[in-house]
Amino acid sequence: MRLSRYYLPVLKETPSEAQIASHRLMLRAGMIRQEGAGIYAWLPLGFRVLKKIEQIVREEQDRAGAAEMLMPTIQQADLWRESGRYDAYGKEMLRITDRADREMLFGPTNEEMITEIFRAGVRSYKDLPKILYHIQWKFRDEIRPRFGVMRGREFLMKDSYSFDIDEESARKSYYKMFVAYLRTFARLGVKAIPMRADTGPIGGDLSHEFIVLAETGESAVFCDKRLVEMDTPKKDVDFDGDLKPIFDQFTSLYAATDEMHDKSEFDSVDQKHQVSARGIEVGHIFFFGEKYSKPMKAVVAGSDGSEIPVQMGSYGVGVSRLMGAIIEAYHDENGCKWPMPVAPYHVGLVNLRSGDEDCDAACDKIYKELTSKGVEVLYDDTGGRPGEKFARMDLIGLPYQLVIGPRGIKSGEAEVKNRTTDERETIAIDKVTEIISGRVADALDYA
Amino acid sequence: MRLSRYYLPVLKETPSEAQIASHRLMLRAGMIRQEGAGIYAWLPLGFRVLKKIEQIVREEQDRAGAAEMLMPTIQQADLWRESGRYDAYGKEMLRITDRADREMLFGPTNEEMITEIFRAGVRSYKDLPKILYHIQWKFRDEIRPRFGVMRGREFLMKDSYSFDIDEESARKSYYKMFVAYLRTFARLGVKAIPMRADTGPIGGDLSHEFIVLAETGESAVFCDKRLVEMDTPKKDVDFDGDLKPIFDQFTSLYAATDEMHDKSEFDSVDQKHQVSARGIEVGHIFFFGEKYSKPMKAVVAGSDGSEIPVQMGSYGVGVSRLMGAIIEAYHDENGCKWPMPVAPYHVGLVNLRSGDEDCDAACDKIYKELTSKGVEVLYDDTGGRPGEKFARMDLIGLPYQLVIGPRGIKSGEAEVKNRTTDERETIAIDKVTEIISGRVADALDYA
Repeated sequence: MRLSRYYLPVLKETPSEAQIASHRLMLRAGMIRQEGAGIYAWLPLGFRVLKKIEQIVREEQDRAGAAEMLMPTIQQADLWRESGRYDAYGKEMLRITDRADREMLFGPTNEEMITEIFRAGVRSYKDLPKILYHIQWKFRDEIRPRFGVMRGREFLMKDSYSFDIDEESARKSYYKMFVAYLRTFARLGVKAIPMRADTGPIGGDLSHEFIVLAETGESAVFCDKRLVEMDTPKKDVDFDGDLKPIFDQFTSLYAATDEMHDKSEFDSVDQKHQVSARGIEVGHIFFFGEKYSKPMKAVVAGSDGSEIPVQMGSYGVGVSRLMGAIIEAYHDENGCKWPMPVAPYHVGLVNLRSGDEDCDAACDKIYKELTSKGVEVLYDDTGGRPGEKFARMDLIGLPYQLVIGPRGIKSGEAEVKNRTTDERETIAIDKVTEIISGRVADALDYA
Repeated sequence: MRLSRYYLPVLKETPSEAQIASHRLMLRAGMIRQEGAGIYAWLPLGFRVLKKIEQIVREEQDRAGAAEMLMPTIQQADLWRESGRYDAYGKEMLRITDRADREMLFGPTNEEMITEIFRAGVRSYKDLPKILYHIQWKFRDEIRPRFGVMRGREFLMKDSYSFDIDEESARKSYYKMFVAYLRTFARLGVKAIPMRADTGPIGGDLSHEFIVLAETGESAVFCDKRLVEMDTPKKDVDFDGDLKPIFDQFTSLYAATDEMHDKSEFDSVDQKHQVSARGIEVGHIFFFGEKYSKPMKAVVAGSDGSEIPVQMGSYGVGVSRLMGAIIEAYHDENGCKWPMPVAPYHVGLVNLRSGDEDCDAACDKIYKELTSKGVEVLYDDTGGRPGEKFARMDLIGLPYQLVIGPRGIKSGEAEVKNRTTDERETIAIDKVTEIISGRVADALDYA
């Protein structure tokens, strides 16, 4: 994409309302714009990151055998009366009345609706197990939205729902999502640690939060350091096989959020392994059995013909929130430092003298070559001073910056900056496409 | 995908509320489920088609040089007061009050918001032209939602917005979207004819609707037959070049909706070329100049430093509605007949005797081979009678059905049915992957 045609409204000043790095940087780098309290427009650069996060989440759900669908944002109040949550949910639920005075709401979550959909279409135990998911915009009317997309009101969430005939089978579904989550977060470049969690308003018996460690995290967390260092399951992991050993491995060591923290148990962990830190919740999974299937009569016929309420679980990933969490983990005072898999573009190509015939020709050629090799390039073909161009590239944080100016043209060299390390090197202009496209491909190749 | 894990709740009975083929078939084939008046959940099969339509729309927007972003669904009432439309829009606007008694609304369109975003980030004529778009769920509180997704209340729309310094440049942006639309609809497999249109509540001077001819169309349309036969611009069309000749070519012949119909002009068309039919609107483009930029003060500095309100246009495609339009164009009494580019899966693989060792082995092998070649396969590995399996495959309408049974295993042959023509042929089992994957690739290769 040529920057001259793009919409990238970077800000020089730090907006005063932004208290944490991710919020500041997303506003400054022209990734989002606030359109109301806790409501954001995703400008082109931010939107690309959001789509990449979403796609990785999707691929790992598909790999685990879940089927994607999409439920509407607007739900009927009556559906929530069936589960008893319409009154229980409180003011966080955005309630709406339409022109015919029907009571509706902007969905904050979808347990009721998916249960309704399931019960309408599944009749027999032979049709189980099933895992369905969608990636959908939700609304929760937070009393104090803050920290940008980290605690917004309108937010993008992946939520999956599992349906099983009995608890043993339901646990297998739970393990599938558990392993899918380990892989999802690792592919996004963040280390998310599963921690025992309270089940809260969703209800149920078994629940884990996935927590990214970060200084700006909203809650205190405690865990065994060896968990942080554990290897993520590889892509050839067999989701039809026995996943319990992986689940056991990742839950055998101490890890708990503040709410579930057991000081005496934590004290028994060898001191050199004790980590007490702050964390950002990026995923939350629940097994809640018959909590919705029983009141809503989501039953299937068992092998003996009897009616059996299905065992359910739900599994959420905060897709838009993850973008904030990734920035919290990867930035410096000059801007973002995107991991390659979620970088809005892989390479920023800087033409130091746009309008100069030789510079334009060299940049146009590299732009075309890299693009034809599948490298995503944001090409700064605008006017403006070099200092302004460098600062903007640092701010938006693409993994590689490739700088071409009159001096380089003469010597046949391009300057390449790795934004992750801030190291610079010089590469011959006629080799730069091959070398950079190779590095990008390597960085995207995740096991 | 194995059908045993999928969620495909086909209905035997035709739902009584569905008056047109697309609505009936989408319900019967388990593609959608109604969750409220004019509000649908997209079940896995329907969701796949929706995503494919969306992706083709996106690719052609990107090709034309538009930049994708995403605006929130919830908007502030005050923004619409700036343009004067908050009161003018009437009861179709879903108005909402949040917990802090702020007046908000579920966006029915985004002219105001994009104007606000633009004015905050663009200062100079040098930053123009720009085209921004998003693909977003919208809500219009129709008094009488009907025809399934064709006139729903919550619907998916692609809307683009162009910003130019003067009318001449704005017309170029209009031509870009005009040509992008011709390509978009052709790639989706439908023939959409641009027709002069009334500008309606969006306002403006220049407007075209893109209309798919179909008996069940909502409005009468009149056009010159030669328009229907005109060749679509190829993918190497130069969006930076002069597109006026293409625009002129497609607007030189008579074509108008009922509202804009000029009987005497139509009568002057050679009778053998006169088409009077019914049509479904799938796209609508507008040039409306300063209608929003002036009241909302979206101005840029001109070359002499003066403040110039930008010239704007907006360009909509009804993404979810297109799914209905495509079914109206491609179906028979047994079900859908998807064009390859939007088919939920390319191939339906039918195991006539699931559980039989040889049948399972042969099907598993073909399933793996086809999948590894990028062919999307829905594998019916369930029990059930052959008649039930065939009827379901016809109903969901995948382009190819590939049938493997005990008799075929013995003779080394698979039966292949082309759902578009309903022709059957026999292909050697060991050649079937190569032949079918080749045909699928050919059908997906669009110029």
